[in-house]
Amino acid sequence: MGFDVTPELQAKIDTVREFVRTELYPLEPQFLTRPFTELLPTIAELRKKVAAMGMLASHMPTDIGGGGLHFLEFARISEELGKSPIGLLVFNSQAPDAGNMELMYKHVTPEQRERFLRPLVAGEVRSAFTMTEPGHAGSNPVDMSVTAVKDGDHYVINGRKWFSTAIENAGFAIAMTVTNPKAPPHQRASMFFVPLPHPGLKILRKISVMGETGHDFFCHCEIEYDNCRVPATDMLGGEGQAFRLAQDRLGPGRIHHCMRWIGICERALDMMVERARTRKLGHDRVLGDMQSVQNWIAESRAEIDAARLLVLNAAEAIEKKGAQNARVEISCIKIFVPQVLMKVIDRAIQTHGAMGMTDDTILSWWYRHERGSRIYDGPDEVHKVVIARALLKEHALKERG
Amino acid sequence: MGFDVTPELQAKIDTVREFVRTELYPLEPQFLTRPFTELLPTIAELRKKVAAMGMLASHMPTDIGGGGLHFLEFARISEELGKSPIGLLVFNSQAPDAGNMELMYKHVTPEQRERFLRPLVAGEVRSAFTMTEPGHAGSNPVDMSVTAVKDGDHYVINGRKWFSTAIENAGFAIAMTVTNPKAPPHQRASMFFVPLPHPGLKILRKISVMGETGHDFFCHCEIEYDNCRVPATDMLGGEGQAFRLAQDRLGPGRIHHCMRWIGICERALDMMVERARTRKLGHDRVLGDMQSVQNWIAESRAEIDAARLLVLNAAEAIEKKGAQNARVEISCIKIFVPQVLMKVIDRAIQTHGAMGMTDDTILSWWYRHERGSRIYDGPDEVHKVVIARALLKEHALKERG
Amino acid sequence: MGFDVTPELQAKIDTVREFVRTELYPLEPQFLTRPFTELLPTIAELRKKVAAMGMLASHMPTDIGGGGLHFLEFARISEELGKSPIGLLVFNSQAPDAGNMELMYKHVTPEQRERFLRPLVAGEVRSAFTMTEPGHAGSNPVDMSVTAVKDGDHYVINGRKWFSTAIENAGFAIAMTVTNPKAPPHQRASMFFVPLPHPGLKILRKISVMGETGHDFFCHCEIEYDNCRVPATDMLGGEGQAFRLAQDRLGPGRIHHCMRWIGICERALDMMVERARTRKLGHDRVLGDMQSVQNWIAESRAEIDAARLLVLNAAEAIEKKGAQNARVEISCIKIFVPQVLMKVIDRAIQTHGAMGMTDDTILSWWYRHERGSRIYDGPDEVHKVVIARALLKEHALKERG
Amino acid sequence: MGFDVTPELQAKIDTVREFVRTELYPLEPQFLTRPFTELLPTIAELRKKVAAMGMLASHMPTDIGGGGLHFLEFARISEELGKSPIGLLVFNSQAPDAGNMELMYKHVTPEQRERFLRPLVAGEVRSAFTMTEPGHAGSNPVDMSVTAVKDGDHYVINGRKWFSTAIENAGFAIAMTVTNPKAPPHQRASMFFVPLPHPGLKILRKISVMGETGHDFFCHCEIEYDNCRVPATDMLGGEGQAFRLAQDRLGPGRIHHCMRWIGICERALDMMVERARTRKLGHDRVLGDMQSVQNWIAESRAEIDAARLLVLNAAEAIEKKGAQNARVEISCIKIFVPQVLMKVIDRAIQTHGAMGMTDDTILSWWYRHERGSRIYDGPDEVHKVVIARALLKEHALKERG
Repeated sequence: MGFDVTPELQAKIDTVREFVRTELYPLEPQFLTRPFTELLPTIAELRKKVAAMGMLASHMPTDIGGGGLHFLEFARISEELGKSPIGLLVFNSQAPDAGNMELMYKHVTPEQRERFLRPLVAGEVRSAFTMTEPGHAGSNPVDMSVTAVKDGDHYVINGRKWFSTAIENAGFAIAMTVTNPKAPPHQRASMFFVPLPHPGLKILRKISVMGETGHDFFCHCEIEYDNCRVPATDMLGGEGQAFRLAQDRLGPGRIHHCMRWIGICERALDMMVERARTRKLGHDRVLGDMQSVQNWIAESRAEIDAARLLVLNAAEAIEKKGAQNARVEISCIKIFVPQVLMKVIDRAIQTHGAMGMTDDTILSWWYRHERGSRIYDGPDEVHKVVIARALLKEHALKERG
Repeated sequence: MGFDVTPELQAKIDTVREFVRTELYPLEPQFLTRPFTELLPTIAELRKKVAAMGMLASHMPTDIGGGGLHFLEFARISEELGKSPIGLLVFNSQAPDAGNMELMYKHVTPEQRERFLRPLVAGEVRSAFTMTEPGHAGSNPVDMSVTAVKDGDHYVINGRKWFSTAIENAGFAIAMTVTNPKAPPHQRASMFFVPLPHPGLKILRKISVMGETGHDFFCHCEIEYDNCRVPATDMLGGEGQAFRLAQDRLGPGRIHHCMRWIGICERALDMMVERARTRKLGHDRVLGDMQSVQNWIAESRAEIDAARLLVLNAAEAIEKKGAQNARVEISCIKIFVPQVLMKVIDRAIQTHGAMGMTDDTILSWWYRHERGSRIYDGPDEVHKVVIARALLKEHALKERG
Repeated sequence: MGFDVTPELQAKIDTVREFVRTELYPLEPQFLTRPFTELLPTIAELRKKVAAMGMLASHMPTDIGGGGLHFLEFARISEELGKSPIGLLVFNSQAPDAGNMELMYKHVTPEQRERFLRPLVAGEVRSAFTMTEPGHAGSNPVDMSVTAVKDGDHYVINGRKWFSTAIENAGFAIAMTVTNPKAPPHQRASMFFVPLPHPGLKILRKISVMGETGHDFFCHCEIEYDNCRVPATDMLGGEGQAFRLAQDRLGPGRIHHCMRWIGICERALDMMVERARTRKLGHDRVLGDMQSVQNWIAESRAEIDAARLLVLNAAEAIEKKGAQNARVEISCIKIFVPQVLMKVIDRAIQTHGAMGMTDDTILSWWYRHERGSRIYDGPDEVHKVVIARALLKEHALKERG
Repeated sequence: MGFDVTPELQAKIDTVREFVRTELYPLEPQFLTRPFTELLPTIAELRKKVAAMGMLASHMPTDIGGGGLHFLEFARISEELGKSPIGLLVFNSQAPDAGNMELMYKHVTPEQRERFLRPLVAGEVRSAFTMTEPGHAGSNPVDMSVTAVKDGDHYVINGRKWFSTAIENAGFAIAMTVTNPKAPPHQRASMFFVPLPHPGLKILRKISVMGETGHDFFCHCEIEYDNCRVPATDMLGGEGQAFRLAQDRLGPGRIHHCMRWIGICERALDMMVERARTRKLGHDRVLGDMQSVQNWIAESRAEIDAARLLVLNAAEAIEKKGAQNARVEISCIKIFVPQVLMKVIDRAIQTHGAMGMTDDTILSWWYRHERGSRIYDGPDEVHKVVIARALLKEHALKERG
């Protein structure tokens, strides 16, 4: 019945929850106030523990070294990991690597599999996905200007990308490029592996996002491909297939994001309730006696549960009919969950008063960085149009019979 | 997986949907513009068809003459019936009768079962539930002033009730009364059957609600128990048990209401999309090309699906752990679904423009009468306090634990 | 400073407020539960008192028999009158008559002035304004199909209109018609006086709006002009001028509506506070001790005051630069005030609980009928586009220098 | 009429607007990506220009060296200065200095005036106001634990404060302390000047707020008074008067904040419109053609104008009846304006897409740091209670007659 969890999965969830609570929460003060690079050795140690638990890249099949969790199972783990800003990273299931792994698993050549995918799953390297371009609407992936021109048995890539997340210190990037400018719009682009560092890929700047330029995994870069030569054999998927592959990558990726956001919501609600319970107002009352705070708690509880069910339902729809046919369900969670997320974080901050503004809690970090949830992977507005057009079309078809 | 529907149930849903569409939608112009009593013969005819389908009181067990649908199965039927304002009535699953039947099924004596319950399930009579009192907060059921005083082997009931829904032409009422004023608050009240008409029960007035006093099933009355004598054997459940019984009645009742509201939402969304698709704006565009309208469609789609899943999840919680232990889940749907309902209706009206204000569609009727969804069975504010207190208490226990 | 009120105007406001409170509030039970026609004699009596006060049609200049209040002065009176659903009617400043008077005052011939305008200002007749057509977007006034064809020294009008408000028992209608179908869109239409009853104007039906077909002043009709012959001298304004006149009529009309809505808001807030103050919750608390209710009161107070200031500011903008140049200000109030209005009414209903749903108070009437505020005189969506385009254009002009 | 601006004031506004646009906007990239201390020399230069314009501390009377603007005049200037995050600072009208100056002007001794106030107005030093304490609800200023105990002709201050804004490099702090713990709650506290640096005042930490610890003026510190001895003559105002003085300080301070927020809103709206106008979507459309974006522009325009009028109205109320009697008006703007502010900033970010998340524009800085607007100077929830109680009390008084 419902979205029941098997006892085996529940045991895994409990283990992860406890790990996150005891191993990761205590790192937050350091995470919030020190350069991220200082945490890297600790994360490396933690990853060894996770590997020992068999949970590294648990969303990937075991044949490539992953944990072998089913898509809907991983969703539940993703929620738990989302409660810490480094949870997914420590478990090697973070974006953009998780999506890259899934994409590569389906489309790599045997050689690419060993050279790029296996070390990525093993957590030996990180990767980047360079798609978005400055001055081009991210919501329109066919509108791209970076080109890859064939030159013998190589391709030469030129042009700028931005919001190349986590590219600093990554082992390779996947480059989305126009190879066939005269083909129909959705068949113009191809993907290439670019091993890093590479003389033809320059990081122009780390983009300061919400006041932070960040380091290593936590950075967003503007980069330039400058006569970047890659062998033709390092193409990922077929020529002109990049748009289709990128679409493919998005469906499950949105489930991962949404479940991570549900995890954030749960943690924020938990903090809200705890603050309400313990913060004294005068001598005989606590904050939780205020009906305004009670309202926030109650609305959050209802909205988070609704959001989780909607995501699980979308995940199931992907399973049953494929990401393409579950477009409406996917777009629905992409507009619904970030809205709940931002409301819950906002209420948690308000419940904490001035402390909610500080980095004495993790809340303000989420307030800043998760604002992007309504923008990346398609802004709300684009997803709404997708949903509405699908429903309008369905009505039109019904009429025609 | 998920809240899957068996093929058998799906067939029933499809049958009901088609019945509602072809038999009930066409009655709406009459329903909206003529006195309801003129529809009664038609409804009687339709009930015969429903009975022939084996769907009358389908939420009740077959041993008492019901359709034998399981609680979660009926929820799906309830959604379909909700799409017409007379759907549940035609299928004899309408409030307050449905809740009364469920309550009675568990608590009647054998004699009461034959005398009151069986004809109710068979659709031969209707019933009323007289609880709310003028001047007393409906949200506080222990605050009641109607009394039943023992007098030999009878009880004599005195006092006023209001919002006694559908009592006009009902075959009996269930009276909630104080029998033990000195007992602890939750053990003061008892319930009685009052066969109607009864010399001791006067309808003081039909309360005009949203501009309509209504008739028969569609009315809300202020009534007076004036030395209303009933035999002690007509007590429903034990002495002092009324509060517990009333609580019991509410859990499943809220699922029924919520699924009905989901049905309204689906119908309203359907009308919204159809209007958007067909309403011309100038020569080459339709309303559905406007992004504002697209936004309403998309947001409604996401919110309705989230609402349905939340209700099904609450229904499952009731199944698994009982209504008492599913209080948080029940209160969550009671705040979440009416909010979605009123938003969706409002958007549908706005999409219809001036026509949305008229009774040329069913929308304005729902706009008026379903506003009550945020008030009856506990206003939003009370349910929010219930949820918040439960979460705060849970945190306190965890700490001590 | 600010929008100060002179002592003379304040005295008028106080007089009107007291009149509305003592003379009109007591009529509400009758207004809410009896056919409106039964109130007509009472209204006629009240109008005599108002005439004696010199306040009949107080928004019109004294030379035509009005009260001579300045536009911004009348706005304040309009707020007071809005507190009763019959306030403006009793003072002969109700829509559509008020707008018709203003339009006519500027554009009538001397003969029309005596025949149509003077008796209208004196309250001897009522009028209608027939513009909206079924199947045509009301938001697009150039899209019209009713025609007036010249035939000698007469015009012959044919076609259907709907939402012809208050036309039952009116003394005349103003018909908006297409006279020059081949002219540029905004120069196609002309207006005519149609004295009523007229053999060429048939009321096809009273449109049931929010459950009520209404009577006399309170009705919205679908009508047909069927070879309706009117003398060419009964044209109002010049040929092809109707669109410009209609636009002209709207600016001040929106101020009147908005101030009336502010009046409703103030009354609803007043009722909300009074209910909160007096409704007992158990023995030692009142509803007003609940923070949720306090929130509604506070938010309403802030929003209503903001709304009033915005309306007064727009009125001043009309004064200073004319309605055409104050388009942004006018569209701003047309989206802002109805939104506040509907929120405040909704909160007042929720504060009243079940009683808020009934016709024991005026709230549910407003809930039903003022929902139209977001639709008529241009739906929210159209006004938002007007504002946005104006701002975008302004930026473009700035750039060009 | 309305809140008209004299031609003289308009000239000043225009001058300031141009100054902010040409001198301050260009500093934003540096402000957003470099340590604030690097900007200090530039700010010192700019202040010289401002001084030459006679606009330094323009809210203060000329007899102490200020610009002599009237309260309502300064409100307009404050809006212009708010458009840059350093606008008020450059004009020496920033919080907490502006509020401190106003407080001191009324309550200092002649000696204090020359020693503390004059250099502050001249911009030679900055100041801090140390009130909020960790673990104490900031919304309850009578709940304080820092004490000042008399010791001969000195007082000795002990205890902790946090959110001591801008105390780094300040010339002096004003300390709010309990001197009379047994007096009635509102008469327990006194204020003292503490010249800085002072051996008895330690900065324990700069609190990291929204990811930034900041520097100099832009920092919030946790401090400790550790046997901090100050002469009794450095008391500000009378003994036990601190609470009253702090209240006094808040009324006008809230006007200043609100007008600054209006300035932010105007700038954000301007950026939103400009982005909408220029951002291409494909070949033939711009972002501003999307109705969702048009909606944001329109709603922002209406809400900002409403907000400004509400603030000016509250400012006028303070002028007319004093801050104490204008409590409702002040609390109304304190809940209304931050709500508009956060909505407008949020829409502007969404309009900018990924760029809105970056520090390539000023928007994300405001998103982060102005979130505090709903918390400091009393969180929304407290102000709502203030308003509601005032209205409930007013009704009770009316009844008693």
